[in-house]
Amino acid sequence: MNFDEAGVIAALARIFGSSQRGVEIGIGDDAAVVKTSERTAITTDIAVEGTHFNTEWSSAFDIGRKITAANLADVYAMGGSPRFLVAAVTLAGEESMEWIEDLAEGIAHEASSCGAYVVGGDLAKGPCKVISITAIGQIDTPITRSGAQAGDSIYISSLPGWSAAGLAILQSAIGGKSEAGKLAVQEFKSPTIDYQFDSARATAMCDVSDCIIEQGGQIADASGVELALDVNLIAKSAEFIELQSIEKELEVSIWQWIFAGGEDHVLLATGKDLPGLRIGEVVRGSGVSGVPSGVETSAWKHFK
Amino acid sequence: MNFDEAGVIAALARIFGSSQRGVEIGIGDDAAVVKTSERTAITTDIAVEGTHFNTEWSSAFDIGRKITAANLADVYAMGGSPRFLVAAVTLAGEESMEWIEDLAEGIAHEASSCGAYVVGGDLAKGPCKVISITAIGQIDTPITRSGAQAGDSIYISSLPGWSAAGLAILQSAIGGKSEAGKLAVQEFKSPTIDYQFDSARATAMCDVSDCIIEQGGQIADASGVELALDVNLIAKSAEFIELQSIEKELEVSIWQWIFAGGEDHVLLATGKDLPGLRIGEVVRGSGVSGVPSGVETSAWKHFK
Repeated sequence: MNFDEAGVIAALARIFGSSQRGVEIGIGDDAAVVKTSERTAITTDIAVEGTHFNTEWSSAFDIGRKITAANLADVYAMGGSPRFLVAAVTLAGEESMEWIEDLAEGIAHEASSCGAYVVGGDLAKGPCKVISITAIGQIDTPITRSGAQAGDSIYISSLPGWSAAGLAILQSAIGGKSEAGKLAVQEFKSPTIDYQFDSARATAMCDVSDCIIEQGGQIADASGVELALDVNLIAKSAEFIELQSIEKELEVSIWQWIFAGGEDHVLLATGKDLPGLRIGEVVRGSGVSGVPSGVETSAWKHFK
Repeated sequence: MNFDEAGVIAALARIFGSSQRGVEIGIGDDAAVVKTSERTAITTDIAVEGTHFNTEWSSAFDIGRKITAANLADVYAMGGSPRFLVAAVTLAGEESMEWIEDLAEGIAHEASSCGAYVVGGDLAKGPCKVISITAIGQIDTPITRSGAQAGDSIYISSLPGWSAAGLAILQSAIGGKSEAGKLAVQEFKSPTIDYQFDSARATAMCDVSDCIIEQGGQIADASGVELALDVNLIAKSAEFIELQSIEKELEVSIWQWIFAGGEDHVLLATGKDLPGLRIGEVVRGSGVSGVPSGVETSAWKHFK
């Protein structure tokens, strides 16, 4: 063991702090006690070393940020504001104190970027690193997947595909030297969440944690409509042109990244005059249309 | 893979249900949305196959119950009432659909025993089974570890040691045929939580998830008092006599089980005229006194 347990607990208490807004009892008792309002959003995510993150490619700080972001994005995707987090972690025992502190710093950093605090956690020994975070948010009017109506437009808070492009750079060891390439690698290691996306007028919304085709299909199914995507709207965006510069280096399909990439955590929303990038229209029908031929989603699995 | 993912998700939705009291949006969207009151307790626990549970000794149903109980007990230990749970699980891939359903049934069963519901979760592949549960509870007046005062008595909701006795039976393959022995094995596999313990007048309280010496020490430290335990009070209890019958079969120290056993999840509380078993007095001083000589707690570690 490269760390002592008491030292870890003391470090975590220091990093996560003890007196935060809305936290009556923080780390150190049987449970945290926090102030809540009438309606609360709850979401949980579990990430496994080797499957969801890789310590060779990502720092502990980035891993902490990435997994926290995935949870925070789920609260945003319901129209809520993240407030409190708890983190349950297994460690293999060979981690250094510095690595553990960096992980905690990454979790705390990402949480604080949207005004949320870590209020508790658990630590155990396991065969590999597993990080499970639960986020609790305040929510007034939930925005589900089922409210999309024919006549709405379809928006994304920003362009997905960056994370997949970053993974492709890391896997191929080609590219990644341009500004766009560096951004892609960073987005893969720790995605930027569009915490400022104003979703108040959205009729339906979800977090594109898998890919536009998957989550678009979920909105289409839940709402009983068709999401008619228009690649021309996407191709006009400044972000598309940046991402395209990476595509040229790697000679792969940019549409594969955009429509089937995964792990970008952009928000996919329907409604009228929303912010973000308009990418299509909601029409009568079912499923998602307008995806360029050749894009493959069958490879995607929760259980990969 | 012995199961298909869509089948698992459909089974979980069926087992955990969709229309529950206080649940506005349950399983199936980015986050659950629940009704909450002004003050909420949050706790999380992570359990790893081989460290915290063992599929050779315990059924999936018992494993689900046990891990859920650990979380529910933490909410009770703050003086709260558990309301909602989320469960994040990694599976190795060789589990049968039946095993997964039994696990979910165990979680749902234990939750329902105190009126709580599973409202969300996550599923991922990992090198072994890891189960992380977060419990959210309603709480009016939190009972921390820091309120014990000289002059209070010390109470336990029931006698700890049963889980350790059960483990000893399983490890030695001796005993376990008497009624008490069967009970001990069952308590090890899935502890009974004293959900009915009326803690309204407790000055300090915590869940004995580790052992009386550890958690008693935490109350003593947080409150700035000494917990003076009296083994004669314990030895008079009916539960002690039952547990003693197992000790005789196995020729080990019953005091080791009671004071340093672990994983019983009984409640340890201070105050005046509380229910449960009175086991000592709070006095001026520090630490825990009255532990019989020979009881060893040094072996106990979070990171075991």
